Amino acid sequence: MINVGIIGYGYWGPNVARNFNETPGAKVTAISDPDAGSLARAGQIYPGIRLERNCEGLLTAKNLDVIAIVTPVSSHFEIAKTALLNGKHIFIEKPFTASVSQAEELIELAEQKKLKIMVDHTFLFTGAVKKIKELIDGGVLGDLYYFDSIRVNLGLFQKDVNVVWDLAPHDLSIMDYLIDKEPLAVMATGVAHFNHGLEDVAYITIYFPNNVIAHLNVNWLSPVKIRTTLIGGQKKMLVWNDLVSDEKIRVYDKGVEGMEGTKEQSYGLRVSYRSGDMWAPRVNQVEALKGEAAYFIDCINNNRIPQNDGKAGLRVVRMLEAIINSLKAGGKLVHL
Amino acid sequence: MINVGIIGYGYWGPNVARNFNETPGAKVTAISDPDAGSLARAGQIYPGIRLERNCEGLLTAKNLDVIAIVTPVSSHFEIAKTALLNGKHIFIEKPFTASVSQAEELIELAEQKKLKIMVDHTFLFTGAVKKIKELIDGGVLGDLYYFDSIRVNLGLFQKDVNVVWDLAPHDLSIMDYLIDKEPLAVMATGVAHFNHGLEDVAYITIYFPNNVIAHLNVNWLSPVKIRTTLIGGQKKMLVWNDLVSDEKIRVYDKGVEGMEGTKEQSYGLRVSYRSGDMWAPRVNQVEALKGEAAYFIDCINNNRIPQNDGKAGLRVVRMLEAIINSLKAGGKLVHL
Amino acid sequence: MINVGIIGYGYWGPNVARNFNETPGAKVTAISDPDAGSLARAGQIYPGIRLERNCEGLLTAKNLDVIAIVTPVSSHFEIAKTALLNGKHIFIEKPFTASVSQAEELIELAEQKKLKIMVDHTFLFTGAVKKIKELIDGGVLGDLYYFDSIRVNLGLFQKDVNVVWDLAPHDLSIMDYLIDKEPLAVMATGVAHFNHGLEDVAYITIYFPNNVIAHLNVNWLSPVKIRTTLIGGQKKMLVWNDLVSDEKIRVYDKGVEGMEGTKEQSYGLRVSYRSGDMWAPRVNQVEALKGEAAYFIDCINNNRIPQNDGKAGLRVVRMLEAIINSLKAGGKLVHL
Amino acid sequence: MINVGIIGYGYWGPNVARNFNETPGAKVTAISDPDAGSLARAGQIYPGIRLERNCEGLLTAKNLDVIAIVTPVSSHFEIAKTALLNGKHIFIEKPFTASVSQAEELIELAEQKKLKIMVDHTFLFTGAVKKIKELIDGGVLGDLYYFDSIRVNLGLFQKDVNVVWDLAPHDLSIMDYLIDKEPLAVMATGVAHFNHGLEDVAYITIYFPNNVIAHLNVNWLSPVKIRTTLIGGQKKMLVWNDLVSDEKIRVYDKGVEGMEGTKEQSYGLRVSYRSGDMWAPRVNQVEALKGEAAYFIDCINNNRIPQNDGKAGLRVVRMLEAIINSLKAGGKLVHL
Repeated sequence: MINVGIIGYGYWGPNVARNFNETPGAKVTAISDPDAGSLARAGQIYPGIRLERNCEGLLTAKNLDVIAIVTPVSSHFEIAKTALLNGKHIFIEKPFTASVSQAEELIELAEQKKLKIMVDHTFLFTGAVKKIKELIDGGVLGDLYYFDSIRVNLGLFQKDVNVVWDLAPHDLSIMDYLIDKEPLAVMATGVAHFNHGLEDVAYITIYFPNNVIAHLNVNWLSPVKIRTTLIGGQKKMLVWNDLVSDEKIRVYDKGVEGMEGTKEQSYGLRVSYRSGDMWAPRVNQVEALKGEAAYFIDCINNNRIPQNDGKAGLRVVRMLEAIINSLKAGGKLVHL
Repeated sequence: MINVGIIGYGYWGPNVARNFNETPGAKVTAISDPDAGSLARAGQIYPGIRLERNCEGLLTAKNLDVIAIVTPVSSHFEIAKTALLNGKHIFIEKPFTASVSQAEELIELAEQKKLKIMVDHTFLFTGAVKKIKELIDGGVLGDLYYFDSIRVNLGLFQKDVNVVWDLAPHDLSIMDYLIDKEPLAVMATGVAHFNHGLEDVAYITIYFPNNVIAHLNVNWLSPVKIRTTLIGGQKKMLVWNDLVSDEKIRVYDKGVEGMEGTKEQSYGLRVSYRSGDMWAPRVNQVEALKGEAAYFIDCINNNRIPQNDGKAGLRVVRMLEAIINSLKAGGKLVHL
Repeated sequence: MINVGIIGYGYWGPNVARNFNETPGAKVTAISDPDAGSLARAGQIYPGIRLERNCEGLLTAKNLDVIAIVTPVSSHFEIAKTALLNGKHIFIEKPFTASVSQAEELIELAEQKKLKIMVDHTFLFTGAVKKIKELIDGGVLGDLYYFDSIRVNLGLFQKDVNVVWDLAPHDLSIMDYLIDKEPLAVMATGVAHFNHGLEDVAYITIYFPNNVIAHLNVNWLSPVKIRTTLIGGQKKMLVWNDLVSDEKIRVYDKGVEGMEGTKEQSYGLRVSYRSGDMWAPRVNQVEALKGEAAYFIDCINNNRIPQNDGKAGLRVVRMLEAIINSLKAGGKLVHL
Repeated sequence: MINVGIIGYGYWGPNVARNFNETPGAKVTAISDPDAGSLARAGQIYPGIRLERNCEGLLTAKNLDVIAIVTPVSSHFEIAKTALLNGKHIFIEKPFTASVSQAEELIELAEQKKLKIMVDHTFLFTGAVKKIKELIDGGVLGDLYYFDSIRVNLGLFQKDVNVVWDLAPHDLSIMDYLIDKEPLAVMATGVAHFNHGLEDVAYITIYFPNNVIAHLNVNWLSPVKIRTTLIGGQKKMLVWNDLVSDEKIRVYDKGVEGMEGTKEQSYGLRVSYRSGDMWAPRVNQVEALKGEAAYFIDCINNNRIPQNDGKAGLRVVRMLEAIINSLKAGGKLVHL
């Protein structure tokens, strides 16, 4: 039995706790949160477990195997480091850390201690992302051309992070998983409309090898909620709309192929088009976090490396850092 | 009666001809096109008018008052210049010219000759854009925050221009009209996936004074056609979907206002949100080109300056030139 | 403090229990369900309360003021009658009873005993239905022309009721509330495609005074889920789509007015059309059952008659009975 | 060369004329319309052809092989009969005639004279209906369960026909083509809200053998335009939305199958569900009338019987007559 301690029981923590607790072979035995009301709610659902306002006790507790860190990113490094030093595997909210160097230090520490890190890139465990991954890896889309994502809605503004740190980690972790290539460079533009000086609208371009381009549109000031990703490939193209309950993924048998054409007409085309059926594969409707929790327990029990390990977390943080640097430098191209 | 000569009778020319011909006080009396088939079609509809494969005759014809230039942009300057030198008002396809200097020369020439130039920014004459203009100028939206437009579809690839020259002039002319401010700088990223080296995917940011930001997403490789513009203002926000027949414009009584808040909670908010009704004003379904043709004839008869005059055309070309320069320089910020 | 006993803790019972328990001034103190697993789940959430597999104990328990009956309709009458005889107010699932005579008997019994009956017409407490009611009662729509509802999806087939008993009570209770007139007659057509002989597709017309017509389309064999209601009025018309999260209700400033026209053209019109803006009023997103539970407690404490009382339940059952009779008689018009 | 005379050049006539004129082997050589303006428009497009305000001349003209009758239904019979008596093939607007007996007389007359009748059931020649026919005939949907169509919009009210005669012929002809079975009975309900006494809202049920049920919802008082048909089959189900430009047809791998189940649980299911992918086959975007005109010319030249011959027209008129009878008799079941 793997004993899990939860640090942070605010908005997302209850979901993490519930899913680990329901995973066969795991049990939530301790929860900490500085807020008394949050702790009381935890106590109602998990009567009899250890509840503390301070997280230190959990980090050093003998009987905990896993620490799930569900706190703001600014506190991630210290908590994670202490947990690793005390021999705990860690499950940690995204973004992994506030900087590349922090991420690197934690990864190294975990390797020394032979401990697992899993960064909570929850979307990788949704039916939609799994299906898209399957389509890409199975060659259905062919070579990729672009990955274009829109993630906009009204707020929530946060005190200490801009819209990039808030919304982009979702897309960056999904993109990292699906494209599965090291990005070459990033460039970002954006604006802060309010007095706290944090961007609320931002546009991010990410260059990959082989002319693959990714673009993220993140916006806290949109009147409508949009969660749409277009992925263009040589063979097929797809649209993923995460806000519809059915037919989230539409695969279009549409495409363009370059031709050797030399004809010099006014509006001459050097490409040929293909426009065929559309197909919406059935997507399993599972609770992503449930699968993720079970997967982490399995990785620990069988000593496997999670796909969303510290290195995956680091890749996302590295992009975030470069995006922020590009924004600060007025949209400069930042090589990775 | 104002006599109009049409140069270019391919895809768009027939619409220009028809609308000028149906405008009271105007008459199409000559059409030229190098293609014999196009000329024959013109002859069927306008029996008895002058038809020529070469445009020179029209440019010097005594009895023509207006020359409508509906040819590829590369030929605009020479044709327009000759027309102006021969004392003709010109109606010219967008983009106005292939370069800023060409546009400036034509504007100066027209001023000397006291002739009108109207650049065919057709969208300004649609019910949708007129309604949005009315909402902005009437203060309904309040101060603008952003203008975010997506114009993507599958092809058509063109031989000599990239996706920016093909699709962005629409958005740039609309944006120029609606925002009505001089842009400060542009930045663009993009990729060419085919061997002709012309970008088929591009992302453009345009900075305006007062933190207004505009962004255009243009893509020839999208499986779905999207024509959506989000405009965020301090008081209201709107979404314009040009592909639906009804309710093209939705105005949301949603917004965010900055507060002086100093509270330092973990996820503290320093803004307040407003979320109310949505309202879709009725949009007149008029043929934009019909209104535009009538407006041009009126500007000539009453010696008025068209809103979409040479200077408006120049502003769009100046942005296009800067966007191309930014793309060529790997996404450099180009000041205007 | 009002003590509530819940009878039936299957699919919907847990929601009823939770909402009554969270209502100030009320408390769930007993739950019965024949299924041991259901009882165990109840025990986890309400530790220490009375749990019984048989409902009789609850019906005669001294310390219970309200019995919530969340069981299949076939058992409603016996349970409700016993509860009333034992002096309990009853909250009862829709449809109220399996027959008109049962409903009438319960209403009479409750009146004698001065007890309240509330039939769980949950939809009446949604933000959408409340808003529509407000629009109709406020005269915004003008005189009603029609009420046209579609409620279709794939299954779930039930053992002992047809699609009418399963799906139509929702629409009938909403319609009864909104139109607020006694229907004159019903007529229904339908088919049973499977061997249990219960209709899985049915179409119901209901005639009201003043030429108001209602129509319900209920179908267990639809590949897509549709929950759309059109309501036409003299002044405005509205569309309610319950499956979208935003803009559930759209009010159209569209209409037709009869004219005295005598002109005898081939396709002459004797009506005039009006086509204006569309407006989507903000709809409160509340948990309907929460408001309903609080309303019932308030009705008991302040001796008010619930709008969804036994008589409302009876009106729905009377229509159901007539619809079934019409179906059985091959679509005969059944007067009410 | 087959010479075609067009009778009626109002709203639809110009389309019929243009398509016959563009069909290889056919030529429009005469047009009649009582309205001088309509005739003038015809003259502009077909300079030099015979134009008459009265149709008699055309009906007896030696050099006409086909008469296309594009007039209100009330005039169909007389014109068609005269045309047939004068040895002309006829192409005639739907609905074929104003009564069953008229249709029967025309069919008999055409048979005697060895002439063709084609009733303009245009929808049968759309890419969408052809694709659905292919799916049904190819067994993709399996045995049909139901055909459920909604055709609603605001107006246009007509002087002498109700909403059934105006809108239902579309659905009836499509249904007749797709289901390809003789209906057993019809039943209709509806209401007239304006003083001319013609129904503006109607609901029609049509019973076919083997428990196939069809339902049509036609309404002139809807704030939104809807053109949606659901077709349920044993193997697959489809939704046809004619108002979208792409993905008009969606085929769902969803279904229900009856089982022998005897289990007597409270909410026991006796069916099994299947829920899989969705697939939107590419639909050819052709001008239906173009294909239809070519097909008629081909039927004449090669002495083939059109699928939409007089008998198809009669089947539609027979259903219309029965529907009207059912409406008049207050929703009585009318056997066919």
